[in-house]
Amino acid sequence: MTLPSWNDGAARTAIVDFVEAVTEEGGTDFVPPAERIAVLDNDGTLWCERPAYVQAMFVIRRLGDAAAARPELARQPVVKALLAGDLETAHQYGIEAIAGVLLELDAGRTTEEFTRDAADWLAAAKHPRFGVRFRELTYSPMLELMDLLRAREFRVFIVTGGGVEFVRAVGEELYGVPPDDIVGSAVQVSFERRDGRVVLVRQAAMLGSPNEGPPKAVNIQAHIGRRPILAAGNSAGDREMLEYAHTGERPSLCLVVDHDDAEREYAYAGAAVTDPDAEPIVDTASRLGWTVVSMRRDWNRVFAR
Amino acid sequence: MTLPSWNDGAARTAIVDFVEAVTEEGGTDFVPPAERIAVLDNDGTLWCERPAYVQAMFVIRRLGDAAAARPELARQPVVKALLAGDLETAHQYGIEAIAGVLLELDAGRTTEEFTRDAADWLAAAKHPRFGVRFRELTYSPMLELMDLLRAREFRVFIVTGGGVEFVRAVGEELYGVPPDDIVGSAVQVSFERRDGRVVLVRQAAMLGSPNEGPPKAVNIQAHIGRRPILAAGNSAGDREMLEYAHTGERPSLCLVVDHDDAEREYAYAGAAVTDPDAEPIVDTASRLGWTVVSMRRDWNRVFAR
Repeated sequence: MTLPSWNDGAARTAIVDFVEAVTEEGGTDFVPPAERIAVLDNDGTLWCERPAYVQAMFVIRRLGDAAAARPELARQPVVKALLAGDLETAHQYGIEAIAGVLLELDAGRTTEEFTRDAADWLAAAKHPRFGVRFRELTYSPMLELMDLLRAREFRVFIVTGGGVEFVRAVGEELYGVPPDDIVGSAVQVSFERRDGRVVLVRQAAMLGSPNEGPPKAVNIQAHIGRRPILAAGNSAGDREMLEYAHTGERPSLCLVVDHDDAEREYAYAGAAVTDPDAEPIVDTASRLGWTVVSMRRDWNRVFAR
Repeated sequence: MTLPSWNDGAARTAIVDFVEAVTEEGGTDFVPPAERIAVLDNDGTLWCERPAYVQAMFVIRRLGDAAAARPELARQPVVKALLAGDLETAHQYGIEAIAGVLLELDAGRTTEEFTRDAADWLAAAKHPRFGVRFRELTYSPMLELMDLLRAREFRVFIVTGGGVEFVRAVGEELYGVPPDDIVGSAVQVSFERRDGRVVLVRQAAMLGSPNEGPPKAVNIQAHIGRRPILAAGNSAGDREMLEYAHTGERPSLCLVVDHDDAEREYAYAGAAVTDPDAEPIVDTASRLGWTVVSMRRDWNRVFAR
């Protein structure tokens, strides 16, 4: 199997063995193609999430534009803190205040307009440390894994805590994953007719909970309707999704990307946005026998650029 | 193009012309494969919905079983009316009372158990008039249409007012549509661990609104993330979905199945469950230039059995 960005080692072996086992006709671990469902987290699993989520940088940029046009917005303390990059102060105003400000930004935009906004920004915006566009900071080994899975008749889904519309703006181009195979956090939209055309208009409210933790498993069922046999993540927010794959009746493979490479990328313990006190996912992985992927040791190449 | 169950006529011509136009490389109406999204209603569009929705018969059967086991349930007036098939009386207790009783039936079942229940029932249950299994009462011309669309690199989705888990139980086998390509009404599920396994457990509450009317368009965006270019339905509950396809920037085809064949199937005007006073969909179709498919005139064969 062609996984040129992967070094020989336990992680690569686990992947190769698993894919061989579930695709070998007549083998005891054979899984029919229809049930070969793979779910992959996005931020920190498929592309770089440091120093901040790509979408957070997009939203802050949009907030800056809005504040420039609307002085009364710029005067709000929470907005000032956000624009200064002072997240600690911003958090003192509460997550509802932050969410309220950010959700308001795109309220009234149609889904089609929002997708264009996001795609346009992503076409040019650059990473502050690496100096290349964010879109070039996808992980080469994970793209190879996705290709391998598709070649072996897996269906590959992205299950992200990020906004589903944001990831959809680039999912096909970056990962070969079409919009309907992306599951994420969502805002409410309303059905409207404008100039005789039906449009769907973003509201300043989330649709249900953020897609992190238990909701990842629930939304996999709502959207995909089958239990995955392969799941990959990098934070405690992916734990329940991995557990869901792990405890099915089929053989499964659970991968945890460990960011232990300060030189080529970053070194940090993946934490859950919605549950900062959760057990580090690498510890969960050791406890449950999941496969930890060390960026430093297992990948001879990090970025796809 | 092979559409053997379709008679020559305006409907068949509209389908053939549309598919040719959007798939002809270099043509003015060409639509790239990624945007060839087709959405089809299920009940009354892909299979027979009379004398009652197939799922309603499943639920009444489950209610009968539950009432036999639990006398206090059998004594409820709304349950008595439902089991007697007296929907008029049942409706006097209000739609919430009906929904409450029915949603309670499967509360506590895991999604995997429910899928098996539904698949088991559908494997054997027979239609009261035609004496064959419900699953044999899919419409041959619509299966041919789906095959044609897939051969031309369309993605074919079912967008149903029915319960998504119910339709998923047979979607792949009956229509070649995998679970993740089925969008429907949904109940809430909870994330639970039972005997060390993650399971998703059905609750006695709907998740959002029934997937009828404007929610069909909203849920197409939530689930598929692209505006369809082909939509087919048979009731006023499909109107907004068809309008959504019709008013995009791409060429579109909107099909309305007209049940005008009392001899081979049924003759009735498709009404919206959630909006009984809505304009008949065939009138909407005439007004907006959509293609009406007359079961009597356009189909030389109705059922796939």
